[in-house]
Order: sequence, then C-alpha cells, then structure tokens
Amino acid sequence: MPKISVKGNSMPESPIRKLVPFAEKAVKNGKKIYLLNIGQPDIKSPAAAMDAVRNHDIEVLSYSHSAGFEGYRKKLADYYNKTAIPVTSEEIIITTGGSEALLFAMGSIADTGDEIIIPEPFYANYNGFATASGVKIVPVESKIETNFALPPISEFEKLITPKTKAILICNPGNPTGYLYTKEEIQQLAEIAIKHDIFVVADEVYREFAYDGAKHYSIMSIPGMEQHAIMIDSVSKRYSMCGARIGCLVSKNKEVINTAMKFAQARLSPPTFEQIASEAALDTPQSYFDDVIKEYTSRRNLLISGLEEIEGVKVAVPKGAFYCIAELPVTNADDFAKWLLEDYQLNNETIMVAPAAGFYSTPNTGLNQVRIAYVLKKEDLEKAINILKEALIAYNK
Amino acid sequence: MPKISVKGNSMPESPIRKLVPFAEKAVKNGKKIYLLNIGQPDIKSPAAAMDAVRNHDIEVLSYSHSAGFEGYRKKLADYYNKTAIPVTSEEIIITTGGSEALLFAMGSIADTGDEIIIPEPFYANYNGFATASGVKIVPVESKIETNFALPPISEFEKLITPKTKAILICNPGNPTGYLYTKEEIQQLAEIAIKHDIFVVADEVYREFAYDGAKHYSIMSIPGMEQHAIMIDSVSKRYSMCGARIGCLVSKNKEVINTAMKFAQARLSPPTFEQIASEAALDTPQSYFDDVIKEYTSRRNLLISGLEEIEGVKVAVPKGAFYCIAELPVTNADDFAKWLLEDYQLNNETIMVAPAAGFYSTPNTGLNQVRIAYVLKKEDLEKAINILKEALIAYNK
Ligand SMILES: Cc1ncc(COP(=O)(O)O)c(C=O)c1O
Ligand SMILES: Cc1ncc(COP(=O)(O)O)c(C=O)c1O
Repeated sequence: MPKISVKGNSMPESPIRKLVPFAEKAVKNGKKIYLLNIGQPDIKSPAAAMDAVRNHDIEVLSYSHSAGFEGYRKKLADYYNKTAIPVTSEEIIITTGGSEALLFAMGSIADTGDEIIIPEPFYANYNGFATASGVKIVPVESKIETNFALPPISEFEKLITPKTKAILICNPGNPTGYLYTKEEIQQLAEIAIKHDIFVVADEVYREFAYDGAKHYSIMSIPGMEQHAIMIDSVSKRYSMCGARIGCLVSKNKEVINTAMKFAQARLSPPTFEQIASEAALDTPQSYFDDVIKEYTSRRNLLISGLEEIEGVKVAVPKGAFYCIAELPVTNADDFAKWLLEDYQLNNETIMVAPAAGFYSTPNTGLNQVRIAYVLKKEDLEKAINILKEALIAYNK
Repeated sequence: MPKISVKGNSMPESPIRKLVPFAEKAVKNGKKIYLLNIGQPDIKSPAAAMDAVRNHDIEVLSYSHSAGFEGYRKKLADYYNKTAIPVTSEEIIITTGGSEALLFAMGSIADTGDEIIIPEPFYANYNGFATASGVKIVPVESKIETNFALPPISEFEKLITPKTKAILICNPGNPTGYLYTKEEIQQLAEIAIKHDIFVVADEVYREFAYDGAKHYSIMSIPGMEQHAIMIDSVSKRYSMCGARIGCLVSKNKEVINTAMKFAQARLSPPTFEQIASEAALDTPQSYFDDVIKEYTSRRNLLISGLEEIEGVKVAVPKGAFYCIAELPVTNADDFAKWLLEDYQLNNETIMVAPAAGFYSTPNTGLNQVRIAYVLKKEDLEKAINILKEALIAYNK
C-alpha cells in the first residue's frame, strides 16, 4: 500500500474532535449534552445578509476575482478605516475563512523549518496550518495567574533565532479571552521592527471587547506598515461561520503580491457568501451592541458561576467568547471523557474542550479546560451546575 | 523590511493573468476582446441549484461538517455509483473547489522534496499547489503529434525514483482536451500498483466526453482501491465555478483519514454552495445532453476553423472544452501580447493563453496556445476569423 506523507501523519487532530465519538454515544443513549466545547455562536446571522443571498439573481455562478469582489473590498476598507485602520481595497485579499488567510500568511513569509513564535495557549488549528506549511511553532507561555497577558518581551527575545519569521498573536484570544492592551501591542511592534520580523495578528474576534475596553489592532500602530499582517473573518463578527469568508490585510505590497499568487492558484472565494458578507457590512451598530451585551452577561454568569466552584480557577476574559478554567482534576482529558461516558445529572451532561490541545509545550495545561460561552443563559446556568456537581462526584 | 519566503517567491503566476494588464488597457481603449483564454463557461447554472439557494431558510449560518453535509455526500455517492464508481459517503470529502482537494491530496501523500509525475502540458495551477506543498513536479511530455495521448509507460518508468509518490493525470485534460482510453487508464493502474504509488486523477471534466466516447475513471479500475484518489468539482459540470465546491474521493482509508485532518483544520466548506451543489445533483440528464451538444458543436466549429488557417496545427479534443493549437509564430507569448496591444480587426481582438505556462519543461510549447471554447458559436466564429487575419498581419 502506498504511504501517507510524514506531514499527513503529523497533522494534528483537533483537540475537540477527539471527544466527538464519546459525545455521539452519549446522545445515542439519550443523554442531553450542553456544548461548552465549540465556538459556534447561537446568535442569529444578520437578516440583511441572509436576505441578500435569498434575493440573488445569478444565472451563471462564475469565478469571482481571486482577491474577492472589488466592491466588497472597498466597503471593507471603509469599515476598517472607521476603526482607525488606514487601508485601501488593494491591501485586502478576501479569503475562504480566516483559516485560509492564515495559510496564505504562513506560506508567504515562512519556509519549511522556519519558526513562528506564538503565545500559548493558542487556537489549536494554528498547529494544523503550521504542519501543512512546514512551519515550526515556537511557543512562549502565557499564564493563567496573569490572566494570560502578553509574556514579557524578554521571553520572546530569548526565542528569536535567524529562522524566526514572525510572532503570531490572537487578539482577543481564543482560547484565553485575553485582550491585549495598547502597550502590549506597541511592545510587540517594537521587537518586530527591531528583529525585522512580521507580526501576524489574528483579529477574528476584534469586535468582542467587553467592559468598555478598546481593541487595539496591529494595523493601527505607526511604523508597522511593512511588518503587520492582519487576519480577519466574518465567522464570529456576524455569526456567519458557515460563510467561510475572511481576509488577509497588509500594507506590505510584497506580502499582498505573494499572498495573491496563493489566491490565484485556488481561483476565488465562494460567491454567495461574499454577497452575504458584503451585505453584512450594513449591519447597524445596534446589532453589535445587543450581541456584546448578550456575551457580556453570559460571561458574567459563567465566570461568577465558575468562581463559586471549589477548586476552580479562572482567568476573566475581556474579549472573544472563551475562557480557560483550571479544574481540581489531574487530567482534564480523562475528566472530559468521563463527563460524556459516565456522568449524568438528570440525564444531562456537558462537553468541554481539554486545554492541553491548545498548548504546544507537552504536559502543559493538563488540568485546564476551555469553555465557550455561546449558549443562552439558562442553558449556561444548567451547564455550570452540572460542572459543579460532576466535579464533586469525580473527586469522590 | 522582513523577507518574503522562498516558497512565496517561487509561487508561479498564472500564465493567463500575466496578460490581464494588456487586456485591461485594450478594453480601456475601446477594443472588444473575445476571451478564448479562460475556462469560465457561459452556460447557465442549473435553475434548481440557484433556486435552492434563493429558498434557503438559514437563521444561523453555522459551520457544517468538515467533510461536508452528510446528505450531500450520500447523494454524491449515489451519483458516482451510477457511473460505475463504487463509493460510499465515507469515502468522499467535500472540499472548497477541486483546488482544495488537490492541495489536500498533495499534502496527504507527499513531503517536501517528494515528486509527482504529471504528463505535460498540464493545468497550470498544479504548479502553484505543488509549490505551496513543497512538492516537485516531474513532467513527462505528451505530444501534439499524438493528440496528447498518454506517454509510453516506459517514459514514466524512467522517471520513477524513491521520491516518487504519485502520478497525477487530468482526464479529460485541461489544456489538451485529451480523453484517456480504458487501456491507458489500465496501464497507469499497473505501474501504480507495481511501484506502489498513488494515481491522483483530476476528473473535474468527467462529464465532458464527446463523439459518444466514454470516460473511464481511475476509481472504476479493480485493484486500484488503495492507490486511486479522484478529484472532482461542480465548477464545470454545472457551470458553477463560483460555488467553490469540489471533492476528494478515495477508497483508501488512510488517505481519507489524513485528508480529513487537513479538512478539520480549515473547519468546513461553504454552506450556501453546498446547498446549491446538492440541489444540482437533481439536474436532469437533458441538461447535460444539451450542454454536451452545445460544446460538441462549438468544438467542431473551432477545430474546423483552426484547421483551415495556414500553418496552424491542432489536436482534436475528445473532452473538456479546451484545445492546444500550434501557431506559425516563434513565440506565442509575444503574439498574445501583440494581439491585445497592437492588433484589431474592426476594433475587435482576441485573448489566448500562451501554452508555455502549461509545460513544466523550459522552452516547450513556445509556439502553442490554449484555446477554450466556452463562447457562443457566433462569437467563436468571429474570434477564429480574427486569429486568421491576425496571423497574416503578424507574419508580414
Ligand atoms: C482564533 C481563530 N482564528 C481563526 C479562526 C478560523 O475562523 P474562520 O476560518 O471560520 O474564519 C477561528 C475559528 O474558530 C479562531 O477561533
Ligand atoms: C483541470 C482542472 N482541475 C481543477 C480545477 C479547479 O477547479 P475548482 O477549484 O473550481 O473546482 C480546474 C479549473 O479550471 C481545472 O481546469
């Protein structure tokens, strides 16, 4: 039998998917599961976006521009300009999800064996994109004790080698919910300029900043024009995960020209979802105000609920819709499986994402889980209570 | 300024796009251009598919399964079974275009520096996917004199090394229009089994076989279960290029499991286009009969027109909607530019794709162009006449 590639064999499995068979079995056995493990919001997509697709009058569904609709890129540039990001439509490439933008960015700036430094815990699929691109991820640990703030700059500098091509951050963070301060972003900019490397900022949660906190984009820092690459997506902003529309943004012309060659090879991003995404840009501010209000109150409910559980430590998220919680267990992976296989409270249980999969350093975060607060409050409340009772039962 | 990767710098530019600035200038100057250079059909997408999208009732546009809708995969398996390809829904991964399926296939079976043998001329974007994947393409020449039939098996065997992971064919071929015979497919199967390598068959034009000829899929050859990977797409079949829906099909479980890891990292294919593609499966045979009839008569018109031009040699295509024509010029690239910049017949001209970009061997196919017959007949007729007159003017 012909052999699978080493790369293929080393492609990581999503830390969430590993639990799926256990969850499926639990559902088959009639258990109800509250899904705290996935970042799929229950929020409705903007009606205007869904209507735009309903009202399409396409007769020949043809390839679009490889960089995406020009009209969409222009409106998107306007949108960014309003948030203090000075870009033109020529500095934006529409991609098939933020996922594809991350692949294009890695391919454009790093060769096989090159290194990208990422504060961990980080979005687990960075591992997959890095493996697919032949890139080595070098983790720098951020800690629950400091709410997952940016590790000290000295820690980054220790890790920079001639092979280091970029620092990749997620702001606000998945899985940490941490929102970087202006000072932190400026510090990152400084080392990037000093060592002449890129900063790739995954800002797919940029609208989700709570408690009146402001999101600082890497694109808004003067002097970073040649060093900054922003990754964005409509998935979370408009609760349009199925659209698979994102973008890569940079003022560095070489980056754009190079990423465009990757974009041209795969022809174009999907048409109907570009229609939806363009229409979504007209979503009124009130939609976001409502969404932020909803997420804030879910977060408050979740965090105060978690803080009340004995032995649970939690970092308070300022953005996105995840938090990392440390549990009074030695192995969160075993506990997550046990929750699905062996536990039930009134025939209900919960599914959480063991956090070890978000760390690149082995044996780190073993007693942590990521919890997404994308459920409505009454469900979230029940889920927290299940966690509390389950921990008591588990530790008996 | 931080550096672009070697990979990024070596990403090829599409041979077609290079001419775009010249075409844009010509259009600005008021010239009408008949586009013989692109594979974007003018055929209407099936109404049922467009209606299905119009009638969607999605409120939360969420991620779908990473392998695509289960319902769609089941119907697609039925579709293949009707064409003598025995597959189940578990052996299909829905991808974002055939393009992504090609990337997943290369990543799953080849590491950096590994080799894939491809009969040239071949679809130019294979170069881009190979560069992105770190894979080396080893070309084996097929010749216009033999209508671009499969090169002799001995030629393949000369090129097989320990690094050879697969032979990639396009059947029917873009840019050649060549449809492999059952014997040729069987010969390929034999060397694949003998040398324990994969055959990746890009069958995105599988429905476009003319003159009653039958398409033989690599998947229909007994004994190839572990060696065959099929790439497919709705782009050409239903004239739904903008859908970005394709698939990777294999009965080799390791291949599917590995490709699934790539699929999971990028989350899911686009939702609306899966709805369209699933609905398109109900397209009645009469749609294809009409389309095949239309392409056949366009092909006949084009080929007889080309054969009448002095000094032009053409391989008669049996499938897809392209042909390679050898022109009485030394450099088709210069000629294609000249057509856009300096030539006009009643203020009209044509755009053709220089064929050198479809060859991997340097300085090959320099006097050839690829012509797509995706225009309606009256336009095609005018375009052929322009080519005839232009060649006379150019060679003066
Ligand atoms: C941090 C982060 N980046 C990127 C993505 C990819 O998003 P998409 O490809 O749907 O745009 C996700 C999705 O969960 C994410 O959490
Ligand atoms: C031979 C061949 N393979 C693959 C593709 C990619 O098609 P898509 O990604 O639109 O499915 C094309 C498109 O022209 C093609 O000609």
